[in-house]
Amino acid sequence: MSITRHDPSPILSHAVEHGDTVYLAGIVAKNLDQDVKGQTKQVLDDIDRLLAKCGSHKSKVLTATIWVTDIRNRALMNEVYTAWADAKNLPARACVASALADPKALVEIMVIAAK
Amino acid sequence: MSITRHDPSPILSHAVEHGDTVYLAGIVAKNLDQDVKGQTKQVLDDIDRLLAKCGSHKSKVLTATIWVTDIRNRALMNEVYTAWADAKNLPARACVASALADPKALVEIMVIAAK
Amino acid sequence: MSITRHDPSPILSHAVEHGDTVYLAGIVAKNLDQDVKGQTKQVLDDIDRLLAKCGSHKSKVLTATIWVTDIRNRALMNEVYTAWADAKNLPARACVASALADPKALVEIMVIAAK
Repeated sequence: MSITRHDPSPILSHAVEHGDTVYLAGIVAKNLDQDVKGQTKQVLDDIDRLLAKCGSHKSKVLTATIWVTDIRNRALMNEVYTAWADAKNLPARACVASALADPKALVEIMVIAAK
Repeated sequence: MSITRHDPSPILSHAVEHGDTVYLAGIVAKNLDQDVKGQTKQVLDDIDRLLAKCGSHKSKVLTATIWVTDIRNRALMNEVYTAWADAKNLPARACVASALADPKALVEIMVIAAK
Repeated sequence: MSITRHDPSPILSHAVEHGDTVYLAGIVAKNLDQDVKGQTKQVLDDIDRLLAKCGSHKSKVLTATIWVTDIRNRALMNEVYTAWADAKNLPARACVASALADPKALVEIMVIAAK
């Protein structure tokens, strides 16, 4: 199966297609001055953009791993996440707390999707 | 390849089939008053149930990500995990420490399996 | 699709092939007396060895999850990681902080690759 990589940074590809499966990088917000809801919105917008680039869509996300830096932010993140997600096609997911690369980042989401 | 989703909650599907691959959600125990061994047993029972629903089985688990809230609980979790796992068909896995959504949850396990 | 497992330990397989996809375990260094750069080098050498066993290669890594115990070690880990990675074929990845099984382990890397 072919491998197609998109949007390279110096350390990673933001999206990698392998056959019918799409692996996105862990996405964080670009504007880290926003609160967790604003950051989550940015992350999901970027995921939409990357999925589209791969011929995928949020209705085809298979699984999501979500890291929040403070588990008390999970409920706020969930408000934005559930408004975004396709209610009839919810991904599997896990949400746990971890410190992230940038101390101002509050949430990071990494998804695997189908094409 | 077709996508089939099972057991939706308001925020996630507990299992998602994509072709020959099955993605389960991060599973936590329902009765969080139990200790880490009891919680691990509950999690693995639920994983068995979800895998069966997808036409899979613990002998076909490919990889597992295990989060414990206190890495000192890893040995106790491992006792239950290794008693459960198919010794001739052990998954790849990683086990790390993270805070989880419910402060009483001690372990969460997310697996990817083959059908 | 067939499943082939390699290098079992008492608790996991270090590599699992499923069709065209390879799942490696979360790899930590064997010599934990080394600093984060030395440990990262050991981890990546072991990943190279396991990928080769599965008929894969670092140029075919699809995604990597990297755990460091102290996010301040991320830059040092990245120096070794980017020197290792195939610059024209960078995986998707996430890097977060979590406590690991052995208190001396500073980094753990888990990859999914294509064959």
